Amino acid sequence: MTHIIRADGRTADQLRPVTIERGWSEQAEGSALISFGKTKVLCTASFTNGVPRWLQGKGKGWVTAEYAMLPRSTNDRMDRESVKGRIGGRTHEISRLIGRSLRAVIDTKALGENTVVIDCDVLQADGGTRTAAITGAYVALADAIAWAREQKFIGKNAVPLTDSVAAVSVGIIDGAPMLDLAYVEDVRAETDMNVVVTGRGQFVEVQGTAEGAPFDRAELDSLLDLAVAGSAELAAIQRSVLQNGAPA
Amino acid sequence: MTHIIRADGRTADQLRPVTIERGWSEQAEGSALISFGKTKVLCTASFTNGVPRWLQGKGKGWVTAEYAMLPRSTNDRMDRESVKGRIGGRTHEISRLIGRSLRAVIDTKALGENTVVIDCDVLQADGGTRTAAITGAYVALADAIAWAREQKFIGKNAVPLTDSVAAVSVGIIDGAPMLDLAYVEDVRAETDMNVVVTGRGQFVEVQGTAEGAPFDRAELDSLLDLAVAGSAELAAIQRSVLQNGAPA
Amino acid sequence: MTHIIRADGRTADQLRPVTIERGWSEQAEGSALISFGKTKVLCTASFTNGVPRWLQGKGKGWVTAEYAMLPRSTNDRMDRESVKGRIGGRTHEISRLIGRSLRAVIDTKALGENTVVIDCDVLQADGGTRTAAITGAYVALADAIAWAREQKFIGKNAVPLTDSVAAVSVGIIDGAPMLDLAYVEDVRAETDMNVVVTGRGQFVEVQGTAEGAPFDRAELDSLLDLAVAGSAELAAIQRSVLQNGAPA
Amino acid sequence: MTHIIRADGRTADQLRPVTIERGWSEQAEGSALISFGKTKVLCTASFTNGVPRWLQGKGKGWVTAEYAMLPRSTNDRMDRESVKGRIGGRTHEISRLIGRSLRAVIDTKALGENTVVIDCDVLQADGGTRTAAITGAYVALADAIAWAREQKFIGKNAVPLTDSVAAVSVGIIDGAPMLDLAYVEDVRAETDMNVVVTGRGQFVEVQGTAEGAPFDRAELDSLLDLAVAGSAELAAIQRSVLQNGAPA
Amino acid sequence: MTHIIRADGRTADQLRPVTIERGWSEQAEGSALISFGKTKVLCTASFTNGVPRWLQGKGKGWVTAEYAMLPRSTNDRMDRESVKGRIGGRTHEISRLIGRSLRAVIDTKALGENTVVIDCDVLQADGGTRTAAITGAYVALADAIAWAREQKFIGKNAVPLTDSVAAVSVGIIDGAPMLDLAYVEDVRAETDMNVVVTGRGQFVEVQGTAEGAPFDRAELDSLLDLAVAGSAELAAIQRSVLQNGAPA
Amino acid sequence: MTHIIRADGRTADQLRPVTIERGWSEQAEGSALISFGKTKVLCTASFTNGVPRWLQGKGKGWVTAEYAMLPRSTNDRMDRESVKGRIGGRTHEISRLIGRSLRAVIDTKALGENTVVIDCDVLQADGGTRTAAITGAYVALADAIAWAREQKFIGKNAVPLTDSVAAVSVGIIDGAPMLDLAYVEDVRAETDMNVVVTGRGQFVEVQGTAEGAPFDRAELDSLLDLAVAGSAELAAIQRSVLQNGAPA
Repeated sequence: MTHIIRADGRTADQLRPVTIERGWSEQAEGSALISFGKTKVLCTASFTNGVPRWLQGKGKGWVTAEYAMLPRSTNDRMDRESVKGRIGGRTHEISRLIGRSLRAVIDTKALGENTVVIDCDVLQADGGTRTAAITGAYVALADAIAWAREQKFIGKNAVPLTDSVAAVSVGIIDGAPMLDLAYVEDVRAETDMNVVVTGRGQFVEVQGTAEGAPFDRAELDSLLDLAVAGSAELAAIQRSVLQNGAPA
Repeated sequence: MTHIIRADGRTADQLRPVTIERGWSEQAEGSALISFGKTKVLCTASFTNGVPRWLQGKGKGWVTAEYAMLPRSTNDRMDRESVKGRIGGRTHEISRLIGRSLRAVIDTKALGENTVVIDCDVLQADGGTRTAAITGAYVALADAIAWAREQKFIGKNAVPLTDSVAAVSVGIIDGAPMLDLAYVEDVRAETDMNVVVTGRGQFVEVQGTAEGAPFDRAELDSLLDLAVAGSAELAAIQRSVLQNGAPA
Repeated sequence: MTHIIRADGRTADQLRPVTIERGWSEQAEGSALISFGKTKVLCTASFTNGVPRWLQGKGKGWVTAEYAMLPRSTNDRMDRESVKGRIGGRTHEISRLIGRSLRAVIDTKALGENTVVIDCDVLQADGGTRTAAITGAYVALADAIAWAREQKFIGKNAVPLTDSVAAVSVGIIDGAPMLDLAYVEDVRAETDMNVVVTGRGQFVEVQGTAEGAPFDRAELDSLLDLAVAGSAELAAIQRSVLQNGAPA
Repeated sequence: MTHIIRADGRTADQLRPVTIERGWSEQAEGSALISFGKTKVLCTASFTNGVPRWLQGKGKGWVTAEYAMLPRSTNDRMDRESVKGRIGGRTHEISRLIGRSLRAVIDTKALGENTVVIDCDVLQADGGTRTAAITGAYVALADAIAWAREQKFIGKNAVPLTDSVAAVSVGIIDGAPMLDLAYVEDVRAETDMNVVVTGRGQFVEVQGTAEGAPFDRAELDSLLDLAVAGSAELAAIQRSVLQNGAPA
Repeated sequence: MTHIIRADGRTADQLRPVTIERGWSEQAEGSALISFGKTKVLCTASFTNGVPRWLQGKGKGWVTAEYAMLPRSTNDRMDRESVKGRIGGRTHEISRLIGRSLRAVIDTKALGENTVVIDCDVLQADGGTRTAAITGAYVALADAIAWAREQKFIGKNAVPLTDSVAAVSVGIIDGAPMLDLAYVEDVRAETDMNVVVTGRGQFVEVQGTAEGAPFDRAELDSLLDLAVAGSAELAAIQRSVLQNGAPA
Repeated sequence: MTHIIRADGRTADQLRPVTIERGWSEQAEGSALISFGKTKVLCTASFTNGVPRWLQGKGKGWVTAEYAMLPRSTNDRMDRESVKGRIGGRTHEISRLIGRSLRAVIDTKALGENTVVIDCDVLQADGGTRTAAITGAYVALADAIAWAREQKFIGKNAVPLTDSVAAVSVGIIDGAPMLDLAYVEDVRAETDMNVVVTGRGQFVEVQGTAEGAPFDRAELDSLLDLAVAGSAELAAIQRSVLQNGAPA
């Protein structure tokens, strides 16, 4: 499998260059500018005391996310959703996916009655924006929680994060499974799958879609193998970035 | 696994009673009222000549879907999305899923420049509304295409449907994989997966979500096994229903 | 007048076959699936404790209604109002008419500080959807109130319903007054009138519209005669359906 | 009946003072500022060549209307519908009523492929805004058509207006039928009816609503008598105003 | 400069005829129908006790404004913003300008926890609608405050109005500075400026825009001179109107 | 004046550090990431052939702009306008200002029937976002036009840009005029003015607002002096950045 060379020179099981710039925003409690190749997503985490009304008085916190693309993050300019007056289905879908992925590694009791809103704004899009968003959002969330601990909004011994979480896309192109699809690959993929995996290697989300022909169990298995390996690399990068002390 | 008895008396690998009433609507080109236990979804297929502007002149057809719930299809009345003035994320997500699932078994060239809009309106909800919707929508779509062939809107030898398609939910409850979750099971499930499978047993969509703890590869595998078997049963019911001549 | 034979074989003063299926919904406190010929409307009544803010503390209840059509309830598919992001004038108008009609037979003091929301969703439309909706909504409302009495949300001796209410359309076609217009008749009618009448035979609403030439006093009188007689038949059907014990 | 004296000194069958100022707007092709007592409605008629797309090529014209209230036309300021982002049901209902009323006296063939949009904006509201709007709108429409004839947009011998049209409210207060209700009367009326009548005395719309107890046939008849007489007075005022040559 | 004669016979530094009809509305606490030539704006001031939530408990009042145009206040009919479902940028911009202008002469402490909402509805537009609106809004505001003092909602010695405020447009046409542009002038102006000035002659807003070529400092100075002189005339008219006792 | 030292150590007539990163986006035809101190705005210019319908066939091009803030570009997170379903007045106002400012230096005939849409998205806000946006937008626009010339979408000798344009804020704080206000200064300013100036030093927009007390002519003059000087510095930076060859 690894002998196939892709348009950008990668092997089939290779991630694009990943960079995570912690503390990009001077205002957010946590933030990360993440790149998967040319895909760039600015993730900010806003920590506030209190929870939405429907959760009040239960001693639990809340984590939610919103995803959006800048109008010219893509090759052709898209209309703004604010101008159209409504949010599209794809945006809704991805916002919900990011929120669920982060909540899978949150102990809401340990978070206490606090809310973290994660904003993932795509500055430049070249495939994999939702997986980059999840991977960067985790770093922003971790920093916001560290900030809250320093501010004593969270107890000294409370551990709201039960694990890390990262995500990667995989797909089948010309019959071959590939990791971390760039845009030109994504549009050609027969099957496209986004996989969200914890730092311990367990699944949070598996979303596979046959864009062309349906896929069989063997293909599914090989895609999952690729995704698990890629996610482990991303988890290592997240760990490494977060170990470098507090963001500037 | 099959020794566990559920609240409604089913074994873990047993579907709820499935009924499909073809031709429920006197107006639509194809229609089906499908029940998965107490879940009832009215699926109508509206066939029209022509395609959306962005597809014109390519000799291809288009299939799309819209999903909605009646306000009192649930235990507590929900506000209408028309009254709220916007469609929620969940509605968008399911409408898109149904559309993709149906397009996976459509040869758009064979369909010609024609459009089929599938409406799936949930009259009563008890878990599994999106999987019932996909399963019923296929029957409505098949009838609309048969109608179009009779009307000579589709060539005599054209075969727009390349396969059948059905969907079923699976989940892990108290550590045990279960098929076709009713609402009371769905809210308790640690992992919830919707699987869309063709009549030939291949995957169109796999959407697994950890609602509580993340899941491992073995759990994923056992859920897929259950879903494939359940989908085969649904495909058999679809075939049987469609073989009974034209709807009244 | 009764010698004219209509397209469907009815005489001018004859209703279409009327059926009312009580308790169609397993979830609503009251429900009825009503048919006026091919017109089918699902009416559900949702009973909740408490009233809207503007009515709080006055010891009175509230009854309101919402009407909608499924997109393919008609010959040509209509866009969903939720997708368009706004409710049309006709929908608003009919929702308000149903609400007023039901409130005319409600003693809001006897109802106490409780709210009943009636949803009338047209599953299939063939003329007379608003009149079928009112007639079915009364049955759903009556069952919701009976349920509330059993639940002791309403006092044992309180009588929130002061009368029954039903509605029917009448119109002038080729100069002849006709009862309960089917769609093909409705589009041809020179004058179209919807009349809402109580069980005791008094008027709640009279809405007559000249679609073509204006109408004179004699025509108005003959339409009212037809409507009063037709409403009495509907009231008898309502009584008969409601006498058959509690819905399954 | 006429011995009852009302709050403002009128007898039961007496209109409030009615004034119609033709040509109030310097820009519209036809306009009228109409008062029914303190109720003031500015009606403008905008004449344009061409018709909406769905009517093109049929040789027929189109007349439509929009009604709105200024936010402080009422005792308590209302939010603007533009700020709320949606038009309320009452506004929709009245706009549609005005449009239907005017179309009842229009020969759309004689109008040719031209459109007249009537705007009725309530500057001050004291009951009867919809009936004042219809009565004033007719004058604005007549002037717009006269303007179009001068401009030769309508043939010399074409007669687009087949009759005049006016409207008045009637109601039952403390058991007594009353003509042209002011706001303080309207809120107390047990039954409220708006009647639209042509210059020849035929009905275009009859909309009666029991606000309190249902009403019987005798009450309905006496209300219709009052309305027909009141409408005849309004028709005379319209004729008189329109005979005074072209507006300044 | 004053030798240039304009289309309507004015000199370059001459206002159009200005009329202010106080107390036009019988319902609002303060109101004025103002004309700048053919431009007519109805300004109403609605006084209510209490302030928006974000201002509660600070002992300060609030003044805000909304501007809108009737659909046929212009030469060509515009669509209603309520029908479009959204307010345009120009409307927003002018509403905000009016609110800021009035707040510049309000001592919010002296106003106490009360709110005044100013509605400026353009009945007829011929250039200068925003400046007429500000000038008329001040008169409506002054009357609403006088009313509130009589009602004892404002203390006897409180002086919420610190000064008067008026506004006028100026522009450069064919190189010559002109005061109070009518519509035909406005569309030809190379530079267009709206200036809001207090009764004491100080600036509240200066908004100059180069519609064609940019303008230099000397042009800016001559425009400001014209505007200050014109505003002083408007302030005198406001004083004179307000000295004539309470409105009828 | 220059002896006052500000919170960040600047003198009253000193700009914050200004950086402009050309070609930040790999996809847009022109782009610039501009910083005025901590304020960061991403400006992209999207060049497309053709013009909006209302301008077709006139041989002229069109330049327009949209401004928006990321939800966490500010100290407290703001709701997204896409989620609220409507664009606020401030956003509209600034988008329109940017568009007008750029059009002031565009010869639309030389641009030909082409459209440039400028998007200014605030990534981090610390006062002066609209002036930074205008200054950066000019650079993005210049690069998009250079790109179009290379692509031969614009004639070799056509000069669509007639000058450069930049903007800066000025204000009066504690009685002293200051250049380029940071957020903490902006909220304290008694008078706030945004001035848009061409490379040749002429005014395109002057927008001064008294936030507290009204301002007099002398204050206005000193603010304009500061703004003209600051704009000249910005114009020099723009020239310098654009002379460094094509962006990477």
